[in-house]
Amino acid sequence: VPELALIEAIRAVLPDPPQRLLRGPGDDAAVVAARPLAVSSIDTVAEGVHFELSTHSAADVGHKALATALSDLAAMGAEPGEALLAFVLPGDFSEESALELARGAAELAAQAGIAVAGGDVVRGRALVVTVAVTGWADGEEELCGRDGARPGELVGVTGELGGAAAGLALLDGRASAMSNSALREDQHEELLRRHRRPEPLLEAGRRLAAFGASAMIDLSDGLASDASHVAAASGLLLRIDLDRVPVAPGARAVATALGAEPAVFAATGGDDYELLVCSPPDRVDALEQAAEDAGTRLTWLGEVGRGTGLELVAADGEPAHGLGGYEHR
Amino acid sequence: VPELALIEAIRAVLPDPPQRLLRGPGDDAAVVAARPLAVSSIDTVAEGVHFELSTHSAADVGHKALATALSDLAAMGAEPGEALLAFVLPGDFSEESALELARGAAELAAQAGIAVAGGDVVRGRALVVTVAVTGWADGEEELCGRDGARPGELVGVTGELGGAAAGLALLDGRASAMSNSALREDQHEELLRRHRRPEPLLEAGRRLAAFGASAMIDLSDGLASDASHVAAASGLLLRIDLDRVPVAPGARAVATALGAEPAVFAATGGDDYELLVCSPPDRVDALEQAAEDAGTRLTWLGEVGRGTGLELVAADGEPAHGLGGYEHR
Repeated sequence: VPELALIEAIRAVLPDPPQRLLRGPGDDAAVVAARPLAVSSIDTVAEGVHFELSTHSAADVGHKALATALSDLAAMGAEPGEALLAFVLPGDFSEESALELARGAAELAAQAGIAVAGGDVVRGRALVVTVAVTGWADGEEELCGRDGARPGELVGVTGELGGAAAGLALLDGRASAMSNSALREDQHEELLRRHRRPEPLLEAGRRLAAFGASAMIDLSDGLASDASHVAAASGLLLRIDLDRVPVAPGARAVATALGAEPAVFAATGGDDYELLVCSPPDRVDALEQAAEDAGTRLTWLGEVGRGTGLELVAADGEPAHGLGGYEHR
Repeated sequence: VPELALIEAIRAVLPDPPQRLLRGPGDDAAVVAARPLAVSSIDTVAEGVHFELSTHSAADVGHKALATALSDLAAMGAEPGEALLAFVLPGDFSEESALELARGAAELAAQAGIAVAGGDVVRGRALVVTVAVTGWADGEEELCGRDGARPGELVGVTGELGGAAAGLALLDGRASAMSNSALREDQHEELLRRHRRPEPLLEAGRRLAAFGASAMIDLSDGLASDASHVAAASGLLLRIDLDRVPVAPGARAVATALGAEPAVFAATGGDDYELLVCSPPDRVDALEQAAEDAGTRLTWLGEVGRGTGLELVAADGEPAHGLGGYEHR
């Protein structure tokens, strides 16, 4: 049951396709002039799981769906190429809301330099947005997977962590009992924005991969989970010092209001979409500069060693407590 | 909320990736050695819209989702490349069912020569499967869009139409009052299979595009709708003779039981995933041979003329009645 009129209206809010898009929306498939390596990923956000329409605008949802997919390209160091958008709209979702959804994605697409090459719109029982993205590279040396970490390397993260999880706690009411004095208005807004409008770090990812990061992953599930993915893919141990975790402004106050240790809250909260990188010792300066040139900064908070799994270390040098499920030595 | 254990189990049922897949499932994104032109499309099937779990197995759903996406590549004449699968699974959908879903897609993928390069699995309120596919071509001359029809060309379709719509009518009970004698058991099974397990005509699409089809589209919405898309994209009139529509065996009996004219039923029923092609007069023989070499056959049922829209003509040479919504002269 195609929604042809709606699809036409959605097309009208999308940015004009770039020249490399030889055929865009409107044919059976899009045709793109390729570069040597295609890098692709798919991500779904579903109502009731990743967002609630009571706390997220349709534009937030469109932005978030594209951002989470683009973040995977960022984590590979790929250059953004094209996106395909698939919307499942509930029966009572208005055409105006559908256009707002498309606009939320289209604005991020324009900002990130990604072309919307096609899509699908169907009616269904709950709002679901799936985005498939393709990025490009000219050679494997431009890209960076999860499996390239080596013993003796440093582990760093871009930006600050815990903001999106704090924003979620403010949105879903868990942190609603916080005193107003604990959080400045601008910090409050920033935490909500971190959750609703994550920013894929495409420029940072490209530069970090190009300047010698050995392994990289985007922090979607949280530092602890995602670091353990890098450890598993590289077949090594990642040791992370909780005291060096850069906690987002405001997230500290929200964590405290929730009775959580701020660093643990920041290390286990998802949806930050910052990048974790592993760096050979002789690339540390270059990667710091690469991050700075991309408008962010790296914090070194651990190292890669022989062994397997993840070790989260607290101030006293002992494995951190209250973090069940991670492998400790 | 990633379903990591389930994702691991799903990966295990997927076919081994081909060599061109430099990085497959398990990293942030897949990496593929590209060819000059990337052809991509996304399709969603949603519970309650495209299938019901009361009449479709999980494997049927996996097959159908991938088939509908691959059919878009067939309609472009692209060679199959990679697929990304995104599953939204209801809370009560068992792991066994999820694996059956993946197996349904994996079996078609292996058969069609497409690699499953990655995916996403989340829990949600209703079953939704979105598939993004990429195909490849070495040059634009290998591909065929909707917009290339020219006046004086012939319009043909592969195979037979109406089978999937008849299968649906049998499944959803509309045709349940049919007498058993009206439909042989093997015809009944074939109609159900047409609806549940559509076959993307990748080989036929490639050959038809290569041997000179000027425009092509896959019949997902039905001959009448899809022919009008070709007419609109080409800026011309397509005239189709209803009496020449090849009606699938069994679909005639089902249409009659439903009180519909069989040719109209076949021309307006969706989900057949046959291909409509436009052929320059001097390519007719070559395209007939191309279809035969791909295991199907072409039926010529109309022509391209100056004007706009679609004209469905009945036996008496008059525009057909009872087909509101199409443009007649």
